[in-house]
Amino acid sequence: MKLSKLVGVRFKEKPADCVIDSHAFCVRGGYIKQVSNGIFSLYTPMKRITQKIENIIREEMDAVDSQEVMFPVVLPGALWEESGRYTSVGDELLRFKDRNDTAMVLGMTHEEAAVHLARDYGRTYANYPFSIYQIQTKYRDEARPRAGLIRVREFTMKDAYSFHTSQEDLEEYYDRMANAYFRIFQRAGIDNIISVKSDSGMIGGSVSHEYMLLADAGEDSIVICEDCGYSANMEAADTTVDNSGCSEKGELTKVYTPDCKTIEDVCKLLETKVEESCKAVIYQINTTDEYVVVFIRGDYEVNETKLTNLLNEKVHPAEVSYDSGLVAGFCGPYKQNAKCKIIYDKSLEGIENLCCGANEKDYHYVGLNIKRDIGDVEYVDVSKIRQGGICPNCGKKTIKISRGIEAGNIFQLGTKYTESMEMTYTAEDGSSKTPIMGCYGIGIGRLAACVCEAYHDDKGPIWPITIAPWQVHICCMRIDDEECKNMSEYIYNELTKMGIEVIYDDRKVRAGAMFADADLLGVPVRVTVGPKALANGEIELSTRDKTIKINVKKEEIIEKTKELVDSLFNKINEKVQDRK
Amino acid sequence: MKLSKLVGVRFKEKPADCVIDSHAFCVRGGYIKQVSNGIFSLYTPMKRITQKIENIIREEMDAVDSQEVMFPVVLPGALWEESGRYTSVGDELLRFKDRNDTAMVLGMTHEEAAVHLARDYGRTYANYPFSIYQIQTKYRDEARPRAGLIRVREFTMKDAYSFHTSQEDLEEYYDRMANAYFRIFQRAGIDNIISVKSDSGMIGGSVSHEYMLLADAGEDSIVICEDCGYSANMEAADTTVDNSGCSEKGELTKVYTPDCKTIEDVCKLLETKVEESCKAVIYQINTTDEYVVVFIRGDYEVNETKLTNLLNEKVHPAEVSYDSGLVAGFCGPYKQNAKCKIIYDKSLEGIENLCCGANEKDYHYVGLNIKRDIGDVEYVDVSKIRQGGICPNCGKKTIKISRGIEAGNIFQLGTKYTESMEMTYTAEDGSSKTPIMGCYGIGIGRLAACVCEAYHDDKGPIWPITIAPWQVHICCMRIDDEECKNMSEYIYNELTKMGIEVIYDDRKVRAGAMFADADLLGVPVRVTVGPKALANGEIELSTRDKTIKINVKKEEIIEKTKELVDSLFNKINEKVQDRK
Repeated sequence: MKLSKLVGVRFKEKPADCVIDSHAFCVRGGYIKQVSNGIFSLYTPMKRITQKIENIIREEMDAVDSQEVMFPVVLPGALWEESGRYTSVGDELLRFKDRNDTAMVLGMTHEEAAVHLARDYGRTYANYPFSIYQIQTKYRDEARPRAGLIRVREFTMKDAYSFHTSQEDLEEYYDRMANAYFRIFQRAGIDNIISVKSDSGMIGGSVSHEYMLLADAGEDSIVICEDCGYSANMEAADTTVDNSGCSEKGELTKVYTPDCKTIEDVCKLLETKVEESCKAVIYQINTTDEYVVVFIRGDYEVNETKLTNLLNEKVHPAEVSYDSGLVAGFCGPYKQNAKCKIIYDKSLEGIENLCCGANEKDYHYVGLNIKRDIGDVEYVDVSKIRQGGICPNCGKKTIKISRGIEAGNIFQLGTKYTESMEMTYTAEDGSSKTPIMGCYGIGIGRLAACVCEAYHDDKGPIWPITIAPWQVHICCMRIDDEECKNMSEYIYNELTKMGIEVIYDDRKVRAGAMFADADLLGVPVRVTVGPKALANGEIELSTRDKTIKINVKKEEIIEKTKELVDSLFNKINEKVQDRK
Repeated sequence: MKLSKLVGVRFKEKPADCVIDSHAFCVRGGYIKQVSNGIFSLYTPMKRITQKIENIIREEMDAVDSQEVMFPVVLPGALWEESGRYTSVGDELLRFKDRNDTAMVLGMTHEEAAVHLARDYGRTYANYPFSIYQIQTKYRDEARPRAGLIRVREFTMKDAYSFHTSQEDLEEYYDRMANAYFRIFQRAGIDNIISVKSDSGMIGGSVSHEYMLLADAGEDSIVICEDCGYSANMEAADTTVDNSGCSEKGELTKVYTPDCKTIEDVCKLLETKVEESCKAVIYQINTTDEYVVVFIRGDYEVNETKLTNLLNEKVHPAEVSYDSGLVAGFCGPYKQNAKCKIIYDKSLEGIENLCCGANEKDYHYVGLNIKRDIGDVEYVDVSKIRQGGICPNCGKKTIKISRGIEAGNIFQLGTKYTESMEMTYTAEDGSSKTPIMGCYGIGIGRLAACVCEAYHDDKGPIWPITIAPWQVHICCMRIDDEECKNMSEYIYNELTKMGIEVIYDDRKVRAGAMFADADLLGVPVRVTVGPKALANGEIELSTRDKTIKINVKKEEIIEKTKELVDSLFNKINEKVQDRK
């Protein structure tokens, strides 16, 4: 393809709304154009990248015996009512009425559609296990789309669904799929992806994993044990707190604490340790507005995902009314008479001498001993694990918190959907049973953005050759020079004939503009045909990552370029290994 | 792929709701499953078929220098307001609000999105002409989905948009695209497709053509001149009526016509010719409820598309109220005092002695001469052309009406979208100009259904090898016979290694069931491995269309199968010709 004919514009200025590099390069390089908040059109370079990712995914899905099907984007609300998700999922599920006033939704995930399609085939045990997948548009009405293709409202996703007759069979397939996922990411050129234990959220199920690209720009916090290798999403990591070194019991005393706005202020005033303080974090349940007070160690934060899972209700930070009986800023567990749900986080367990609010403006207690002063309470884990915290696997204080971007996820769903949607099969013994499901997703556009985030310099993306929009970029430095032009066209035609994908910059522009565009397009191999070198019978061959830059005899340019392309493919493909 | 593992069920009974063969076979053969009215999931065989069609389309689009991009399914209403279509399009455009109460629509066509994407690149004349296309899901909230994948609400479509600086340039590209369309249909195995002049409808523009598969099950009426080859959609065909042989003038006389419910009844009672009668067809304008009375020759029908285009308003058959002043059943042009819009169809022009309603219950006039009794009126063409009618091109009475299914369409849009959406470019002389657009659509699923409609027998589809879900179907007649099984697996493995796509029926089922399933899957080449023939060292090789059925020596089966596959490809590819 000739660059002069490539639809799209490239420019130098970083758009103000781009907070991460991959977003800025995708906009500046003519890859994407925003149509609405979190909704993008893709120009040809991004379409080519996503198509290559899709093809890699297809091959790996076929290799684990998953069959490609296609579900609709628009689904009847009635189907989502079968699973209960029509009401249980929040505003991110876009609901609307069609012209006949029938309730419809835009598919944000397709568990219901998968059960609907597989229900007939899955009537007999003999047909199990089986797996189906699609690559299709999805819509999730995100409250806060951000970061270009990382968090969008409309996206293309590969979603697979597997059906099994036993948990063991599901687990075996889950492992095969996990391996396929690593192969997909490796083949797309990424090697800094890790799989972490995750929270299953509105998809449901017990066990699930996310594939995280480690990147500072990521919006997820990932917990990694530097000793044993344990890894989890912050949302799913169990917190263990060691309170063994705490002070001895004291006397429960009410003290005057004016002008203290935070638990740190109070501890400073009273000269007590924040590690021996109890703060109250107040929420309200979304559906009922009921108050939920979480008592937690002063230096810990509430993990709202854990809290939501515990309550089985969504919550939001409370607006504390006067009527509630809660004294904002001075709320404490002792003589707490407000009508609310009270939760004690495990971080308080074992502390015998706490500082806490006195449920009275400008007063706190010191010396609270929960067991002595309140009685036996149940401690639950609703706090966020911290940097340097205790690993839930090996018990060492080796937890490191990193940032990551979720590039894919896999779930052991169990019977959540098959049971609610009454999918059954006749077992070998003639009895009627409920199949067990798994589901497996990868966001295509997000993966493309992840690769860009992982591989770029300050001038633009450095696409791995397996998913690059083109493999070779020819820069004809002087299109008005007959020799330059003829040589460029010869190379373009010869490489194209060999099946190599070439973008050929045939424009009459300055060298600076030409190289800036080439850097933005991030094509891995570059052939620069300039009049000076050509006068010496030479042509420059280089790589986008700047590791190679050599002059090649013009007679050898086709052969050397082909070799370089092949070597870049080999470099990636050799790295692809089966992992468990 | 082994048939025992293919997700989907096949069955014998024709579903009650299937009115056309392709629909019945697609349901019975495990190709599609309805999720909601006009919304389907695709099982693997249909996914494979549509994917092959998409790949053929991609190659042909690339060959006419169109670049693949991707537009969103969900579009902001504001974008459709720019073109005016947010309000001008009817209920088939699905409008809804997102969580922020912003008006959104589901894309049913993407002219607005194309202008949005191309606006920046198209700022200078030097970048013209250019063309972009996508293959993506669309949604049209059809009032009456029918016939399986023929008329659906959600569908996958290839839609291309071209941009030009002159009408001549658009026309040249339009011809290239028309040629690409014929190549696509030919490569998909269809050769009975014709291009017909069409009505541009809500897409707009002046010139447009539809690609029609001639099929009795089609819902479109196609007008073809058997002499000069003129062809058009009924909606777009001009009607010429020859009234030269009519009676001479008579006297205007009111006559009593009780119990006459139709114009035929009246003509019979009065012994006048229906060709010299004037009937009234009454409509109401959708937006205002204003009455529109069309006077038309008794034996002609109103073409509502022509009427809509004339009025630039949508209409529906009237409910005539008492207040209206219209006397239903006896409405005529003479002394017509009702408050309504009156239209005289051209079919009445030249008749000097008409029978018509007298605007009074149970009375008609005979002897009406419009010019003499009413005065000069304007005649317009709003009637449907008829079988045996006059060809608008050659003037002979050689019009034939056929049924057809629209498989694609192309439009010369002019500046309808670029002007309303303020897309401009700087011309070579520095002036600001508005580009001219064309657009070009093919429904992927509908094309698949068209092929099935065109090529099937009473047992199932006969897929052309270029788009068949698999190329070879192996039937192992006795999976419990070691020799049969081993031979079948050997053939399966060898053919697969050669890159041939094979479906292998490895199930333990009766021969009848096995062949019924094979017929439903419609794979063009079949290898039947049976114990009897195998005992003689032979294997049966046949084609789905029953033209070939031979026994082949088992040593030659791989080679002969490969030859047969190749010959079927060649047969189709040799037919592909450039057409103008």
